[in-house]
Amino acid sequence: MKRRQFLKGATAVAGAAAAVSTLASPAIAQGKRELKLVTTWPKNFPGLGTGAQRFADSVTAATDGRLTVKLFAAGELVPPFESFDAVSTGAADMYHGADYYWQGKHKAYNFFTAVPYGFTANEIDSWIYYGGGQELWDELGAQFNIKGLPCGNTGVQMGGWFNKEIKSLEDFKGLKIRMPGLGGEVLRRIGASAIALPGGEIFPSLQSGAIDATEWVGPWNDLAFGFYKVTKYYYWPGFHEPGSSLAVGINTGVWDSFSAADKALIQACAAGENNRSFAEFNARNNDALNTLINKHGVQLRQMPEDVLNAIGEASGKVVAEVAEVDDISKRIYESFISFRKQSISWAKIADQAYMNARLLPFKYEQG
Amino acid sequence: MKRRQFLKGATAVAGAAAAVSTLASPAIAQGKRELKLVTTWPKNFPGLGTGAQRFADSVTAATDGRLTVKLFAAGELVPPFESFDAVSTGAADMYHGADYYWQGKHKAYNFFTAVPYGFTANEIDSWIYYGGGQELWDELGAQFNIKGLPCGNTGVQMGGWFNKEIKSLEDFKGLKIRMPGLGGEVLRRIGASAIALPGGEIFPSLQSGAIDATEWVGPWNDLAFGFYKVTKYYYWPGFHEPGSSLAVGINTGVWDSFSAADKALIQACAAGENNRSFAEFNARNNDALNTLINKHGVQLRQMPEDVLNAIGEASGKVVAEVAEVDDISKRIYESFISFRKQSISWAKIADQAYMNARLLPFKYEQG
Repeated sequence: MKRRQFLKGATAVAGAAAAVSTLASPAIAQGKRELKLVTTWPKNFPGLGTGAQRFADSVTAATDGRLTVKLFAAGELVPPFESFDAVSTGAADMYHGADYYWQGKHKAYNFFTAVPYGFTANEIDSWIYYGGGQELWDELGAQFNIKGLPCGNTGVQMGGWFNKEIKSLEDFKGLKIRMPGLGGEVLRRIGASAIALPGGEIFPSLQSGAIDATEWVGPWNDLAFGFYKVTKYYYWPGFHEPGSSLAVGINTGVWDSFSAADKALIQACAAGENNRSFAEFNARNNDALNTLINKHGVQLRQMPEDVLNAIGEASGKVVAEVAEVDDISKRIYESFISFRKQSISWAKIADQAYMNARLLPFKYEQG
Repeated sequence: MKRRQFLKGATAVAGAAAAVSTLASPAIAQGKRELKLVTTWPKNFPGLGTGAQRFADSVTAATDGRLTVKLFAAGELVPPFESFDAVSTGAADMYHGADYYWQGKHKAYNFFTAVPYGFTANEIDSWIYYGGGQELWDELGAQFNIKGLPCGNTGVQMGGWFNKEIKSLEDFKGLKIRMPGLGGEVLRRIGASAIALPGGEIFPSLQSGAIDATEWVGPWNDLAFGFYKVTKYYYWPGFHEPGSSLAVGINTGVWDSFSAADKALIQACAAGENNRSFAEFNARNNDALNTLINKHGVQLRQMPEDVLNAIGEASGKVVAEVAEVDDISKRIYESFISFRKQSISWAKIADQAYMNARLLPFKYEQG
């Protein structure tokens, strides 16, 4: 893999240099520079596409159009999963997506979105900004000529929609469930038949019985897809993506061409979007959950403890296997594991303890 | 209060106009504009002062100094608790602080930092950005000529340091504890003798026995203050500030003088700092907690359930009383309570459920 990556890197550098010199023509002469942002999301897809658009708009607005970020939805300039190559070669300036889509390029990319039983949204932010994550991500990305920045987060995803109740681990044996990536691998280890399906194929597959269950994102996005029309059992909590970080990936030649001021501005816009995105997911999930339960009669079910525990054991193994790929994977895994341990110790007495305490039976509304 | 506020508002508008026209002189002629940022924090105070500095630096960097934000630590330009008046009258352009410091101006300001058993960091962000909070904050601030933006968050604070173990509610009777604001009021309702003390007076008071207990922030800040030298019982969870939002408050005359582009840039820098600040608090609290326990032998103790429940009951009453101040307080309280209810429903099956699930006994480190 390394030789291939090296060659790819070399091509990418040449491509980026070409892209930068192209940009040096008329647009820059007028003091304006257009930046092509390709995305892995359909146009205005809730939270994901709209968040990418908000990031693009914030850079354009904050520079009064001097840097105009033009967003291309999935397929408009390149197919969604070619966004990485487009930025790597300089055909596009930046992408907005989820870096685990690039696990075929390098399996360690999983750590920069989410891994089973990994970081929450707050924890991955802490790791990336203040726990050594950004430096490792930069090192990984340098192989592909891409600089990544956190630029959105879905928060904890739901466990998914099931056409029957899950009473024990036995119910996962042979279960046909849509779950891509490392989460799918975990479910295969406990006997499920996990498959990857693109978003658009999930609803008909669930309806026809081709699959028995599916995960997608959370109440906001799941309500929009209408899964409640086919099945009523909506399971919590999700284990596979406890806080999926979205990324903007920038061609390093393009990144290096920015002034220090523009780098600071783009970083502020990305971090600002990172903050707003997670806030929006939480607010919309609040509303959508209410609608699913009270309007559509969805039945919330908690995943049994033996299932969550077996999934945890399998998750530990699947995630640890990523460390075996190469040296940088090992270092990323070790950094992740060490930061995860400390984060859990802190959460236990902070966020988690507080959230548990506020469920005590006291009355709060006295107004 | 309203008449006083109106008069203050009128003075403030005149002051701001003066401030803006002053700024229109040499600095603007050179294409540079200096903005005075007063803060309620000592210079480089961990997380609070350093976060304010990082916000100032990001605006300065992203504009290449066209907007240069000059930070004044507590007392350098005005005393810390005069920051609000300084910005209201236009003597300074903006402040960085915690808006509950201004509860003497209007009690509803508490909701924009933290209230007992209120929002977590993620929840207050959701409420402000997407739950109607910003609009209410703008309406409240307009009375004082101040536009607020979220610009940092400490996360859940710790329950505090106690010189004896707390076994039940009885142990709070007569307990001399340092806890300011609404949290202090809650503790008085359960029989404690809660007092407010400035940061610098806490350590000697704890050492001399003038107080039996104190809260401050969390492991990072508490370690720096050295409370572990005097007492070993460190209680969790905190109830009084489950995610204290820090704010930048901008004189509305100054805010209105900015171009749409500069408004977008400042909003991006504030939201970016909001994201980084909370990430830093979590990362540093992780480390500091480890040091407190393993190096200094601090004993972590969980607050008993009967205490947490009684405090919850009193908190509900104290927070509801804020709604009685005036019409806007009532509307802010109602918006808060309604958003809180939905947020709890969502957290129960999302973040909280996930964090509880990952404490199941499965092994995770297999690498």
